Amino acid sequence: MMRGSVTSDYKGDIDQAVDVLNAALATEIVCILRYKRHYYTAKGIAKDSVAGEFLQHANEEQQHADMIAERITQLGGDPDFNPEGLATRSHSEYKEGDNLVDMIKENLVAERVAIESYREMVRFFGENDPTTRRMLEEILAVEEEHANDMVDLLEQHGKG
Amino acid sequence: MMRGSVTSDYKGDIDQAVDVLNAALATEIVCILRYKRHYYTAKGIAKDSVAGEFLQHANEEQQHADMIAERITQLGGDPDFNPEGLATRSHSEYKEGDNLVDMIKENLVAERVAIESYREMVRFFGENDPTTRRMLEEILAVEEEHANDMVDLLEQHGKG
Amino acid sequence: MMRGSVTSDYKGDIDQAVDVLNAALATEIVCILRYKRHYYTAKGIAKDSVAGEFLQHANEEQQHADMIAERITQLGGDPDFNPEGLATRSHSEYKEGDNLVDMIKENLVAERVAIESYREMVRFFGENDPTTRRMLEEILAVEEEHANDMVDLLEQHGKG
Amino acid sequence: MMRGSVTSDYKGDIDQAVDVLNAALATEIVCILRYKRHYYTAKGIAKDSVAGEFLQHANEEQQHADMIAERITQLGGDPDFNPEGLATRSHSEYKEGDNLVDMIKENLVAERVAIESYREMVRFFGENDPTTRRMLEEILAVEEEHANDMVDLLEQHGKG
Amino acid sequence: MMRGSVTSDYKGDIDQAVDVLNAALATEIVCILRYKRHYYTAKGIAKDSVAGEFLQHANEEQQHADMIAERITQLGGDPDFNPEGLATRSHSEYKEGDNLVDMIKENLVAERVAIESYREMVRFFGENDPTTRRMLEEILAVEEEHANDMVDLLEQHGKG
Amino acid sequence: MMRGSVTSDYKGDIDQAVDVLNAALATEIVCILRYKRHYYTAKGIAKDSVAGEFLQHANEEQQHADMIAERITQLGGDPDFNPEGLATRSHSEYKEGDNLVDMIKENLVAERVAIESYREMVRFFGENDPTTRRMLEEILAVEEEHANDMVDLLEQHGKG
Amino acid sequence: MMRGSVTSDYKGDIDQAVDVLNAALATEIVCILRYKRHYYTAKGIAKDSVAGEFLQHANEEQQHADMIAERITQLGGDPDFNPEGLATRSHSEYKEGDNLVDMIKENLVAERVAIESYREMVRFFGENDPTTRRMLEEILAVEEEHANDMVDLLEQHGKG
Amino acid sequence: MMRGSVTSDYKGDIDQAVDVLNAALATEIVCILRYKRHYYTAKGIAKDSVAGEFLQHANEEQQHADMIAERITQLGGDPDFNPEGLATRSHSEYKEGDNLVDMIKENLVAERVAIESYREMVRFFGENDPTTRRMLEEILAVEEEHANDMVDLLEQHGKG
Amino acid sequence: MMRGSVTSDYKGDIDQAVDVLNAALATEIVCILRYKRHYYTAKGIAKDSVAGEFLQHANEEQQHADMIAERITQLGGDPDFNPEGLATRSHSEYKEGDNLVDMIKENLVAERVAIESYREMVRFFGENDPTTRRMLEEILAVEEEHANDMVDLLEQHGKG
Amino acid sequence: MMRGSVTSDYKGDIDQAVDVLNAALATEIVCILRYKRHYYTAKGIAKDSVAGEFLQHANEEQQHADMIAERITQLGGDPDFNPEGLATRSHSEYKEGDNLVDMIKENLVAERVAIESYREMVRFFGENDPTTRRMLEEILAVEEEHANDMVDLLEQHGKG
Amino acid sequence: MMRGSVTSDYKGDIDQAVDVLNAALATEIVCILRYKRHYYTAKGIAKDSVAGEFLQHANEEQQHADMIAERITQLGGDPDFNPEGLATRSHSEYKEGDNLVDMIKENLVAERVAIESYREMVRFFGENDPTTRRMLEEILAVEEEHANDMVDLLEQHGKG
Amino acid sequence: MMRGSVTSDYKGDIDQAVDVLNAALATEIVCILRYKRHYYTAKGIAKDSVAGEFLQHANEEQQHADMIAERITQLGGDPDFNPEGLATRSHSEYKEGDNLVDMIKENLVAERVAIESYREMVRFFGENDPTTRRMLEEILAVEEEHANDMVDLLEQHGKG
Repeated sequence: MMRGSVTSDYKGDIDQAVDVLNAALATEIVCILRYKRHYYTAKGIAKDSVAGEFLQHANEEQQHADMIAERITQLGGDPDFNPEGLATRSHSEYKEGDNLVDMIKENLVAERVAIESYREMVRFFGENDPTTRRMLEEILAVEEEHANDMVDLLEQHGKG
Repeated sequence: MMRGSVTSDYKGDIDQAVDVLNAALATEIVCILRYKRHYYTAKGIAKDSVAGEFLQHANEEQQHADMIAERITQLGGDPDFNPEGLATRSHSEYKEGDNLVDMIKENLVAERVAIESYREMVRFFGENDPTTRRMLEEILAVEEEHANDMVDLLEQHGKG
Repeated sequence: MMRGSVTSDYKGDIDQAVDVLNAALATEIVCILRYKRHYYTAKGIAKDSVAGEFLQHANEEQQHADMIAERITQLGGDPDFNPEGLATRSHSEYKEGDNLVDMIKENLVAERVAIESYREMVRFFGENDPTTRRMLEEILAVEEEHANDMVDLLEQHGKG
Repeated sequence: MMRGSVTSDYKGDIDQAVDVLNAALATEIVCILRYKRHYYTAKGIAKDSVAGEFLQHANEEQQHADMIAERITQLGGDPDFNPEGLATRSHSEYKEGDNLVDMIKENLVAERVAIESYREMVRFFGENDPTTRRMLEEILAVEEEHANDMVDLLEQHGKG
Repeated sequence: MMRGSVTSDYKGDIDQAVDVLNAALATEIVCILRYKRHYYTAKGIAKDSVAGEFLQHANEEQQHADMIAERITQLGGDPDFNPEGLATRSHSEYKEGDNLVDMIKENLVAERVAIESYREMVRFFGENDPTTRRMLEEILAVEEEHANDMVDLLEQHGKG
Repeated sequence: MMRGSVTSDYKGDIDQAVDVLNAALATEIVCILRYKRHYYTAKGIAKDSVAGEFLQHANEEQQHADMIAERITQLGGDPDFNPEGLATRSHSEYKEGDNLVDMIKENLVAERVAIESYREMVRFFGENDPTTRRMLEEILAVEEEHANDMVDLLEQHGKG
Repeated sequence: MMRGSVTSDYKGDIDQAVDVLNAALATEIVCILRYKRHYYTAKGIAKDSVAGEFLQHANEEQQHADMIAERITQLGGDPDFNPEGLATRSHSEYKEGDNLVDMIKENLVAERVAIESYREMVRFFGENDPTTRRMLEEILAVEEEHANDMVDLLEQHGKG
Repeated sequence: MMRGSVTSDYKGDIDQAVDVLNAALATEIVCILRYKRHYYTAKGIAKDSVAGEFLQHANEEQQHADMIAERITQLGGDPDFNPEGLATRSHSEYKEGDNLVDMIKENLVAERVAIESYREMVRFFGENDPTTRRMLEEILAVEEEHANDMVDLLEQHGKG
Repeated sequence: MMRGSVTSDYKGDIDQAVDVLNAALATEIVCILRYKRHYYTAKGIAKDSVAGEFLQHANEEQQHADMIAERITQLGGDPDFNPEGLATRSHSEYKEGDNLVDMIKENLVAERVAIESYREMVRFFGENDPTTRRMLEEILAVEEEHANDMVDLLEQHGKG
Repeated sequence: MMRGSVTSDYKGDIDQAVDVLNAALATEIVCILRYKRHYYTAKGIAKDSVAGEFLQHANEEQQHADMIAERITQLGGDPDFNPEGLATRSHSEYKEGDNLVDMIKENLVAERVAIESYREMVRFFGENDPTTRRMLEEILAVEEEHANDMVDLLEQHGKG
Repeated sequence: MMRGSVTSDYKGDIDQAVDVLNAALATEIVCILRYKRHYYTAKGIAKDSVAGEFLQHANEEQQHADMIAERITQLGGDPDFNPEGLATRSHSEYKEGDNLVDMIKENLVAERVAIESYREMVRFFGENDPTTRRMLEEILAVEEEHANDMVDLLEQHGKG
Repeated sequence: MMRGSVTSDYKGDIDQAVDVLNAALATEIVCILRYKRHYYTAKGIAKDSVAGEFLQHANEEQQHADMIAERITQLGGDPDFNPEGLATRSHSEYKEGDNLVDMIKENLVAERVAIESYREMVRFFGENDPTTRRMLEEILAVEEEHANDMVDLLEQHGKG
């Protein structure tokens, strides 16, 4: 009874679920740090259009990180926030970028990596755990917007 | 990489998806025009109960049109707002109605057409594109309310 | 045409759907009464931590009851609020509990019963009626939080 | 000293006071259930004028129930929310009504019963417990409005 | 049953009650007109301190008039707003005043007349109709403030 | 210099302007009283649709009365709020009406009288005093809406 | 009397007035569709500066369309929302534009057409119907801003 | 006439009334000081549950003090805020308490003293001065809640 | 086409229009500076009544200055904010005033100068440019209020 | 470690700091009581200008008292709210004043005493404890405003 | 005593302080005028990014001007708003700039002049007058942001 | 000139300043991660009292991180958000803690380290850069509160 919402008809593998979600958590944290860095660097160059977009993404990734950590706790796991090994646990990379176009590209690559991994996670939870799946679908929709935003910025500032 | 959120694991047919959504867009615009017309015509006869309902529906269809146009853009397509051919592209019809009961019936018919076409679209996108599917499910739920609202009004003002 | 949103392509069995939802409605009402009772009894003992949680759950179950009754009406059924037989129609029980730990345990048992029955209902509606299914998935997610909240309270006030 | 606000100059009979208030609590809960049922049934027939009134009353009775349960607790009693026997403990009845006029009449009868019982309770507490008396006077004023609202609706929808 | 909140245990004389309240209504309307006149005349002389006070009183008397008219309707009577005979039906007088001190004095006299008549009405309804009595007590408290405000203004602008 | 905004290039006849505006003020006050009376009488019969409209009009006429009184003061005149002779000074009449249709008709007649007199006043002030003229045009637009609202109500409740 | 605000001193030709306003309504609807199309197309290229301006204009034209349809109804006419023939009834054209500069130019041309036609309508209603004239002057002021906004955008993105 | 709201039908003894209210004022001020002291001392030990309750009570006693001082002024008296003799004029005592349980007990004792004295004051003003009596009844209801809150806290932290 | 809202049917002389508006802009700026100076000087003497009025006027003149500068830009001109020659370009003067009455008089003189010049400008733009004329009429109405406010203050503080 | 924010590099004498702040606390409380007394006494004489100022000061001194008590707690001390000896511990005096001018003078004297003592405290904490110093600088700025407000009032009501 | 907050321990030279602050006031006013001019000129060229920044700075300089004028008054001086000699009294210049880059440069130069003069003023007031010093430090921080904003804009629009 | 706010009279060493601030930034990020971890772990054990405090601290440290990164940019440096080496660059450590008391202790140790380092930084910037110093003083005050909060929690949950 102390397993709370994980009743006997829960069909997934809890340990694997927690591992999958912790990797997503690490990815989101690295994305936050990268977007924050880009925001402060880009502010002097393109304050409203580009930097504003970076800041908004950073804040939305922060919300995703909180949703994921919350769900890990609900499934009985421990969310892993350790700065040591953070870059290793993440799906996407922290890259500073030499210029505005580089920064945008780095973010676009990272968002596309995230989209593919969230699509895979959606399939992983599927029918077994609709609550987790719905949360991931919601995050996925936002990451798709992020990728499209980066493409838009890239078109405005040179495709390279 | 410039395809943004459409990564290599996207399984649907993009061109067909855009066509399907553009037909939905045309349908929503025709619904907005019909509800607006009915709103202004009905105001003198049944301001709060009927006309108020028409206006609320017009506004909600407007939100649907915006959601669909936004998603078309995200998938790389162009939303079609051309007034020429609008009536042809739409699933449902623009009918003015001679009296209050006629108006309500026209809207009910149109909503039921919309419900069936959205249910079909939900199946079309299914597992391939969860983000589009979820948006359509959300619209479907509102259209179901609209159809029920029209039945309620019809019962109050004569079933004919 | 007077069946509103229930168009010819609706695949489920409407009567059975209404029965299933009325049982859920009775369950929610019994939960509201139990949580309200516990709230007033616990206020003197543990006002903020425990009683506050009970009150919040009572309010959220109230919202669920309203969502379910609304959907029953949309499907053409009558929501059953009759106090006679309420306890019988409900999946979970009204138990007052002798002390704080007992109360928390009663709620935890009830929430776990609710979770299992909502998971089953989600499967029942499945592809046939996505609007009802999505509503139930939303309720399910909140009930999972409720169960976890009760486990947390139990850990703080003695596991028994 | 542990009797809190019930100091030695409190002149009423606490046990009887709690019994009187618990009967009022049961009455309010039955009224909530009846108004809720009527609200959902009437929505399809007369959404704004009648159903809206039923919903508002349901919400105001809910506030009364909370005020009464709170006061029972302050006087050292236990509020009784048990669904078993609820209909028996209540002053007024749960009746579904076959049509709109029947529903309005049922509510009017119930409100008039409530008004008489609250007037009696006001006299019961009188000078002995001004705090409880003032709370009941406040509820009484709202129930008087409710009865008048039902008369107004009855005049609009046929006096029978 | 069509008498709504006036159940068989209502002990007062309804016709007399309505007459008493209609006289109060006429008094409030005359007070509104007098305060409004004084407000516009005093604005050029003492905008914030005196005129602002006149305007606030006019608005509060308006609220009283609405409360009284509402209660007349609840008791089954018709509120009398007829401009013909208004001055005659009112307890207090409409006087324009030649200067600021005169205006303040006129209002003070009128407020003191109102206080005495409301105190009398409170006794008239007494135990028979607690709802009307409480409404009148509430109005009385505001009129007492008004009288004191006028005394304060008189002290500042010369007692005469 | 003490004539404030009435500089030497002001071309109109101030005394006549004040008289014209005082007649409008009396008209608005009588309209407020009539709409208030109708609001309380109609509440029991047609609360939301008709009575609500009456109340809104009463409030808007109140705003007009305040605008006019303010302007009279700005032009150096005294606004006349005397209840004695109010009915005589007004362009339109206070009529109670025996039933709902009668009430609506009385208001429609009064609004049409008001529209014609405001159109005339607009011409009277014309180019000479654009500030007063613009205020009257603004009031006129609202009175036109009022007349149309009454026609709408009349169509719904029988044309007679 | 059933002509509401159109009293006997109304001097204009009502039928012609309704025709003039219906042409304006069609123009506004075509403008909404064109600005919406441009908004979604331009979002990827120049999100904040250009697309944001297009969206704001679309929303303001929507307000104009509603004001005009409302006034048509007040004058006793029927607003024409029919998608068939919409492009023909409109003063300005729906053009998609191949690139950003083209889009801006199309809008500028359309706004200048609108300005001239509103100036003409202002003269048409003139002294005869001040309420309609004032509404059109208000719309005219906004369309002038729109034209200037387009010139500003054109200067920033190449005059061509 | 300069006695404002104290008209000739006022039946109480004004001087005694002012003395009674000044003693209540002193009591409230001492309660504010005691609750403030306890709030700051308890913050380190039991921030949310206990200290938060102390702070809320301090603020509510502040409101009572203001209501009482205001009423003293309305009756023509001077409210006495002198720090010299404050402890003597108060009904209850300022005690710092050695620990949490002591603090709670001190407050409970003080609240019970206050309840008894307010009940007595309610009887003192009775029918003679309904405005003062109603204000005191309102304060009494809050003090009853305070006493119950202290009992609740005492049960949670050891009855001693 | 690059002249934006100035289409071929614009009948006024643009250069003269800009000059006229720039003189109004200079006048407003000088008024802001004078009212600000008076506000800070008068604060110590008559904070709420007089100084508060000065501050409010300063803020409203600021809004006028912004409206005028905006319109100059729309007509294709450059608003002139140069501090050199500001006093010369202005219609009214910057005078500090030795005392409160002097200050009020200076403002009254300046407002009356402004009223006359705005009335003249209204005639200047007349039918040719309704958008500019309406803006000026709006400013004129506020300036008339300002002049009346100064007369009121002068009456309260000595006419001199 | 249990000394919290008082780390080993804290350079001041904690005991003396607490004594200094407790004297400031006593001063603020006496100021609150004096301003409250003056507020209620002055209300009848000069409600908006003088009494309003007294009330605002009372509220701001209350905020200061809370800030100081909070800081005492953070430094590990106990804030002293004891009514016994309050007047002795305070820097400034509680004086009721015979008339308005006397009251203003009493407050001015008290504020000037407070300013000097806060300036001295700022120097006392200086570099050793920047957090306390900044809090005191903030209070000092408000007390300077208070002193200036009193001078302004004195100039308006006679310097004596 | 009439010197208010300037008590005997105030160590600075008041006359010099007022002169220093009046020069700062003139500088802020000239900055407001320059930023306003640039805002209206730049709106057509770069509305959101550059013009928006200019407008925000204009508003913040306005706040600074008000803070400084307020402090001058508190120290017993007269703030100098005279348009004559304004340019001479100011530290920085009013320059219109031929193009966007010129405008940005003019503002950058002016902001750097302001930063140096505020740093010097901070040292001037130092320990003698902490209230004035803290106000100036607060303004300085904003001016530093302004200078950085201008550098950012310059980088985006060509360093020249 | 391109150095913006760093004018020639800036006396500090910019490179060293940026290094100092980047170490503070790393410290804040590690604190955020540690508090977030503790928040999610503690939620199940002590939701409101302890976990709520952890969450609030996490959010406040996030604000500090943003203030510091912003200032680094203003001084011309690059804020370092790289997850690699984050733990090394930070003054305080990321420790997960085995139980509630351990967690609280880890945070207390970290806060005391932060307090000492901020006190040192305040001295480092001193008179040379008042803007940075004031920002750090503001952060320091919050960190002192944090340390005291942890001591309070430790006292409640066992000092160990």
